Amino acid sequence: MSTTAQIGVTGLAVMGRNLARNFARNGYTVAVHNRTASRTHALVEEFGSEGDFVATETAKEFVAALERPRRLVIMVKAGDPTDAVIREFAPLLEPGDMIIDGGNAHFADTRRRERELREQGIHFVGTGISGGEEGALNGPSIMPGGSKESYGALGPMLEKISAKAADGAPCVTHVGPDGAGHFVKMVHNGIEYADMQLIGEAYQLLRDVAGYSPAQIADIFRTWNTGRLDSYLIEITAEVLSHVDAATGRPFVDVVVDQAEQKGTGRWTVQIALDLGVPVSGIAEAVFARSLSGHAELREASRGLAGPKASPLGETEAGAFADRVEQALYASKIVSYTQGFHEVAAGSEEYGWDIDLGAVSAIWRGGCIIRAAFLDRIRAAYGARPDLPSLLSDETFAQEIADAQDDWREVLIAATRQGVPTPGFAAALAYYDALRAERLPAALTQGQRDFFGAHTYRRTDRDGAFHTLWGQDRSEVTA
Amino acid sequence: MSTTAQIGVTGLAVMGRNLARNFARNGYTVAVHNRTASRTHALVEEFGSEGDFVATETAKEFVAALERPRRLVIMVKAGDPTDAVIREFAPLLEPGDMIIDGGNAHFADTRRRERELREQGIHFVGTGISGGEEGALNGPSIMPGGSKESYGALGPMLEKISAKAADGAPCVTHVGPDGAGHFVKMVHNGIEYADMQLIGEAYQLLRDVAGYSPAQIADIFRTWNTGRLDSYLIEITAEVLSHVDAATGRPFVDVVVDQAEQKGTGRWTVQIALDLGVPVSGIAEAVFARSLSGHAELREASRGLAGPKASPLGETEAGAFADRVEQALYASKIVSYTQGFHEVAAGSEEYGWDIDLGAVSAIWRGGCIIRAAFLDRIRAAYGARPDLPSLLSDETFAQEIADAQDDWREVLIAATRQGVPTPGFAAALAYYDALRAERLPAALTQGQRDFFGAHTYRRTDRDGAFHTLWGQDRSEVTA
Repeated sequence: MSTTAQIGVTGLAVMGRNLARNFARNGYTVAVHNRTASRTHALVEEFGSEGDFVATETAKEFVAALERPRRLVIMVKAGDPTDAVIREFAPLLEPGDMIIDGGNAHFADTRRRERELREQGIHFVGTGISGGEEGALNGPSIMPGGSKESYGALGPMLEKISAKAADGAPCVTHVGPDGAGHFVKMVHNGIEYADMQLIGEAYQLLRDVAGYSPAQIADIFRTWNTGRLDSYLIEITAEVLSHVDAATGRPFVDVVVDQAEQKGTGRWTVQIALDLGVPVSGIAEAVFARSLSGHAELREASRGLAGPKASPLGETEAGAFADRVEQALYASKIVSYTQGFHEVAAGSEEYGWDIDLGAVSAIWRGGCIIRAAFLDRIRAAYGARPDLPSLLSDETFAQEIADAQDDWREVLIAATRQGVPTPGFAAALAYYDALRAERLPAALTQGQRDFFGAHTYRRTDRDGAFHTLWGQDRSEVTA
Repeated sequence: MSTTAQIGVTGLAVMGRNLARNFARNGYTVAVHNRTASRTHALVEEFGSEGDFVATETAKEFVAALERPRRLVIMVKAGDPTDAVIREFAPLLEPGDMIIDGGNAHFADTRRRERELREQGIHFVGTGISGGEEGALNGPSIMPGGSKESYGALGPMLEKISAKAADGAPCVTHVGPDGAGHFVKMVHNGIEYADMQLIGEAYQLLRDVAGYSPAQIADIFRTWNTGRLDSYLIEITAEVLSHVDAATGRPFVDVVVDQAEQKGTGRWTVQIALDLGVPVSGIAEAVFARSLSGHAELREASRGLAGPKASPLGETEAGAFADRVEQALYASKIVSYTQGFHEVAAGSEEYGWDIDLGAVSAIWRGGCIIRAAFLDRIRAAYGARPDLPSLLSDETFAQEIADAQDDWREVLIAATRQGVPTPGFAAALAYYDALRAERLPAALTQGQRDFFGAHTYRRTDRDGAFHTLWGQDRSEVTA
């Protein structure tokens, strides 16, 4: 047993295995470990030729195989399994060593673990990793939190194994202290939910209102993918839509049960946004759309409800409508990202992370599920003005949305009239119109709250909190 | 010091004080206690003539003043203060005694407290109380959880002090075990948020699209209040809108800062719904609308964004439009309540509470903020069919929504075209259209998830979980 491994990976399910191979392929000696050792040996047997692996069977052997300060990557399930692995390894480590948690942990857990391990002098580096199996192997987008010091020792390795953006920049940055990395990964996933929902709505409109077949819609998405919507999700949408089910000869999308599942990070994104007071209506509608789709019994019971049925357009009109849908999709996407980046900014503020939003958009340009040309424009917007109050304040985005909005509204009008559900598009437009409104009915809300609960209100013409004696002579008192 | 008080109230801020007075006015001897005794004496001094109060200064005195089994109501802030009070009193109590928590506790805290106190043989009765100060004094809607046994000893007293519905029924029922009462109170508040948001949107449309003044809109709400929208919130909306600010002579609603505040139960309702997988988009949009309104800097930065400005209708058209808004408001309200009751049903299922949805709607008919004629129709719907899959499955509501929907859609189309934000109306319609859809784009979502994450999918034509080898020959394998 040599002690020369520069990094170790424990937890060799597909993500851990691929990440270990990625390190090895990049010239690092990688100690590997798994609770059941057979997996460890299988990895070395199958992929040993890709680089230098050190197979270890026990926790002690694993730790002993690592050069100091040790870099120990844990790739196990979020929650209790992660705590169990930390409890197993922490006593074997020394001050200055690093535990990198590459799972989908809740950032609050990461904050707790970082705090606990810091007392032992161990750096705990909660790290978001996006890109699935493929990305883990060939280059993911990596979002490490934890101390700056640990990034000094880890960063160069992560930069090497990460995806590279079109300009060659590695898709990794030190996001911020403690839970910042997992927080940003969470919001990444929330944005991914919104992107997928908006794509789903665009598909449904092209299918039901424009009357296109899945194959035709795949072609439309392929065309979109050559323009400003160029992105991994648009690309794979075309692949999924053009796929024909071998068993039935029908479009694949028509044989799949239309009940979407979810694993939790979208839900967390909304729950945390609620705590932070950030409106993320687009992400919320995406999460709700998935849960609604899964309520089969409720949908069954609702099939007979009254409403219009979409009547497909003629060929010429369909083409023009598809162009409008592209505008609506793009405008709604700008709003989704505006909401997502608002949440990152709010989290950074709340937890003192000092997150560089431009750097976050830069590392999402490659490797991750939401990778897109679009993110380079966001990077540019924050680069030009790091204190941008919101993406919508960027001149380019504001102008693009200005250009898109007539079509955006027309698409929503068609959907509303024809009964096609577009919760994501509608939430995005409502957010946009609310933000730009001179006055909101929130003033009425405050009046009602003061009426029934004496919750007080503020006045537009002078400072202070006021209460109207609604039950008496309706005079106003200072609260 | 006599030991004859039938009930005790500790925590004599306005809610606690009014609840104590309510008990006393109904003929009960009420022991009163407060951390600072001056408040206790002030209460007895000011309101002692209303009934029999026993002023106590120490925890021991307070507990000694209660007849056994003791009924001890705590009316302190939710969270740590509640735990502190429990820690103070629990050691002084005996098996069979009851602690009634009348604050706005999170139901998960209530479940924990109930479990802990049950080990001591003490009944912990987490109790939602709605109706504000007014209701606490003259009759609130009361939602007690806890054991059936405790309800046997408490129910008659609560029934006496509660609000009474139009048919004379007391607005209190044993909601279910442990946290069921606080859970239902939480959803009540979530629905209240949605109701207020929908009213706000209706107001904004009447103001900006129809071109009415606040005073004219107050009249419209007054008219609505004589019809199917008859409710406390519609009634007070008319009051708030017709109120003229004495200092400026302007409509009150125009001098109030349009930034709505919130205290947390709306947010909880959405967060818990996300955990339960229940789409409550209307409540979420209401919470988000409040937080959006409060982001003054963001709104300021967004004022210049492109978009249409509403141009008020002529007088004849305005009247017709107002009628349409009433339809849209009513239809959206049905959807809000559908979502809220779905959450109650899901919570009941998750925690084994066996909540009677008809009984819940019955006790919301009086005393609470959302009290409305409408709730009697919900009670009737569940009465006719307790296993109703959703409110939308009730024939009467389905028919009302069928009748409303052309107008509902037209109102949304006008809002979309004229740039008036209507997130609540739009979310409600999208939910409705999604529920009744034959197919949802969730099938595409599942295809995408299988593509990038091998998350598998189900097929419409046979059982099992499947995965397509997207990166290989795209054949399908059983997962």
